[in-house]
Amino acid sequence: MTQVVYESWGQRVVFGSGTAREDVAAEVAGLGARRVLVIAAEDERALAEDICKDLPVVATFSAVRPHVPAEVAQAVRAAAREHAADLLLSVGGGSTTGTAKAAALTTGLPILAVPTTYAGSEATPVWGLTEEGHKRTGVDPKVLPRIVVYDATLMLSLPTRLSVTSGLNALAHCVDAWWAPRHNPISSALAVEGVRSLASALPRIVADGQDVAARREILFGTYLGAVAFAGAGSGLHHKVCHVLGGAYDLEHAALHSVVLPHVVGLNLPAAPEAARHLAAALDERTDPFGALLALYAQLEPPRSLSELGLAEKELDRACDLVMAQIPDTNPRRVTHGEMRELLGRARRGDTPVPIPLTSPRTEEHPR
Amino acid sequence: MTQVVYESWGQRVVFGSGTAREDVAAEVAGLGARRVLVIAAEDERALAEDICKDLPVVATFSAVRPHVPAEVAQAVRAAAREHAADLLLSVGGGSTTGTAKAAALTTGLPILAVPTTYAGSEATPVWGLTEEGHKRTGVDPKVLPRIVVYDATLMLSLPTRLSVTSGLNALAHCVDAWWAPRHNPISSALAVEGVRSLASALPRIVADGQDVAARREILFGTYLGAVAFAGAGSGLHHKVCHVLGGAYDLEHAALHSVVLPHVVGLNLPAAPEAARHLAAALDERTDPFGALLALYAQLEPPRSLSELGLAEKELDRACDLVMAQIPDTNPRRVTHGEMRELLGRARRGDTPVPIPLTSPRTEEHPR
Repeated sequence: MTQVVYESWGQRVVFGSGTAREDVAAEVAGLGARRVLVIAAEDERALAEDICKDLPVVATFSAVRPHVPAEVAQAVRAAAREHAADLLLSVGGGSTTGTAKAAALTTGLPILAVPTTYAGSEATPVWGLTEEGHKRTGVDPKVLPRIVVYDATLMLSLPTRLSVTSGLNALAHCVDAWWAPRHNPISSALAVEGVRSLASALPRIVADGQDVAARREILFGTYLGAVAFAGAGSGLHHKVCHVLGGAYDLEHAALHSVVLPHVVGLNLPAAPEAARHLAAALDERTDPFGALLALYAQLEPPRSLSELGLAEKELDRACDLVMAQIPDTNPRRVTHGEMRELLGRARRGDTPVPIPLTSPRTEEHPR
Repeated sequence: MTQVVYESWGQRVVFGSGTAREDVAAEVAGLGARRVLVIAAEDERALAEDICKDLPVVATFSAVRPHVPAEVAQAVRAAAREHAADLLLSVGGGSTTGTAKAAALTTGLPILAVPTTYAGSEATPVWGLTEEGHKRTGVDPKVLPRIVVYDATLMLSLPTRLSVTSGLNALAHCVDAWWAPRHNPISSALAVEGVRSLASALPRIVADGQDVAARREILFGTYLGAVAFAGAGSGLHHKVCHVLGGAYDLEHAALHSVVLPHVVGLNLPAAPEAARHLAAALDERTDPFGALLALYAQLEPPRSLSELGLAEKELDRACDLVMAQIPDTNPRRVTHGEMRELLGRARRGDTPVPIPLTSPRTEEHPR
């Protein structure tokens, strides 16, 4: 029996419905903040202004871009300094939260995050920065938002496609936690509940985007997945997506949606414990992989990396980049050929399939 | 839909088997501590000396007593000051961890906890002090141990009876989380997994106290229950036990073991969601209360408060004290008569029974 190390982080999370403005005001007052730098993309500026109406806002930073390019990080840090901000208040999806994290990383300022997608970044101490086509990530408790205010009604205007891809990104946090380098019984338990919530609520959102109870359940699933991910670390799925997202600037949530079932098809045959977790979460004992594909069929997310802009000629280099990042704790020893094949199938949008084991190292990584 | 607030806490937890000494040494080095005050009861002094052999220990405090009397708190704080300690290292059960917490509360010193029972106190920011027969409790992040080192082999010498009562105390953390004042989906999910682990492993410990895998599974369950309890707060069960424990100095874990099924019998008929959680955790869909009693029958814990020393003549006063503490969020509006009856049955050791609803407020507290 190997040592298991589990690290948890302190955070206050408020789940509400239609109460973002008053909840944020109460939390800002509780923190005693007097100089709030709001971080919100142009698209969400009106929403942010509405939420922050009664707050001591000193400036709004809106030059948010996906994967936090280094120049965006520099700009947001400069804004925090210039305006002598004492709180970073992010209103938006993962890129917006990520921009606030970039500022917190060097300034040490606290973050209050108001998520508008199911990105989950708000519940992890993981930061990411992209420079010259490479995404660097790291873990620092300083970047974990001190407070998160979830409001299920903020997601009512999220288009179905983005609801689905963002929700599947949250699902990927859960699933990857079962085989990530620091996988452990606590993170795995949270991830099972996360998958259960997401698999139950996402189809209801597709049927009716105004279903607030389902939106709320997705938020719980999102949060559970993010905490599981923070506890277990980046598994194979996230390594693949970080490489592709950083190198080719692909749409974040859609990228995760496309890649996930292919990685599950690769890892599940070598990970019986993860298969049991997926079976429990999807309430399908005999064929959990089939149940995952059935969920995908209900949700109709994008299926191919080509529609996200990845060209066939990039695949060899992409495969080399991914191979250098595969955690050596992955339950399956992945060959170059298997990964190249996986990327090809994901790019074309082929139906994900279980990849039978061929290598002698078939057992799950012991814990 | 009401607001849900969830607060998590930062902590590093190491689960090992037979590695306490090296794990503690590595963590003390990681903290950079140079003046360690060891807190360990007389019974565990030899164990503590063994674990701390290579550490910079400045003193050992061993005047540990249950429920942390105020004079013990003063003494341990004085020891920390006198020896200019920079780390409190507790080796022991809940009373020992509680003594370290009393010192941390006023000194702000970090705690490294090495549990030797399934008390769970090591994973909560809850402190308790007893003065003139009244137990005061509070929540302060300062008292949450910065680091916990679990070692399943430290529990191998725990007698069966104490393994059982301590394990049922951990189970009570889980169950009470389903109806505690801040109950929420995250804590509830952790509690389901906690009950699952404990219910699976406790009977194996009764069969073979040297089963290290079962001891380890109980530690995971203990930790999950404690985190669930920290997130959800004290429910009815803990209010009853805090009152009785503080006022009559009853054996802590045994007290919890005796009281739990009686409180479940009272609350479960008014708490359908908790009933679903218990059913899922015990894998018994139709009669989760019966499954809990069947688990008790396997474990043979003490059954009566009278054998712990509670006299019949105390019950009226005890009932008054408890009634003043019942959370107004409890799913059932408990009458004085119901509580008096519950305490009488628990004192006599009667078989716990489901108490049918009589009051008009039959619905579960809405969330």
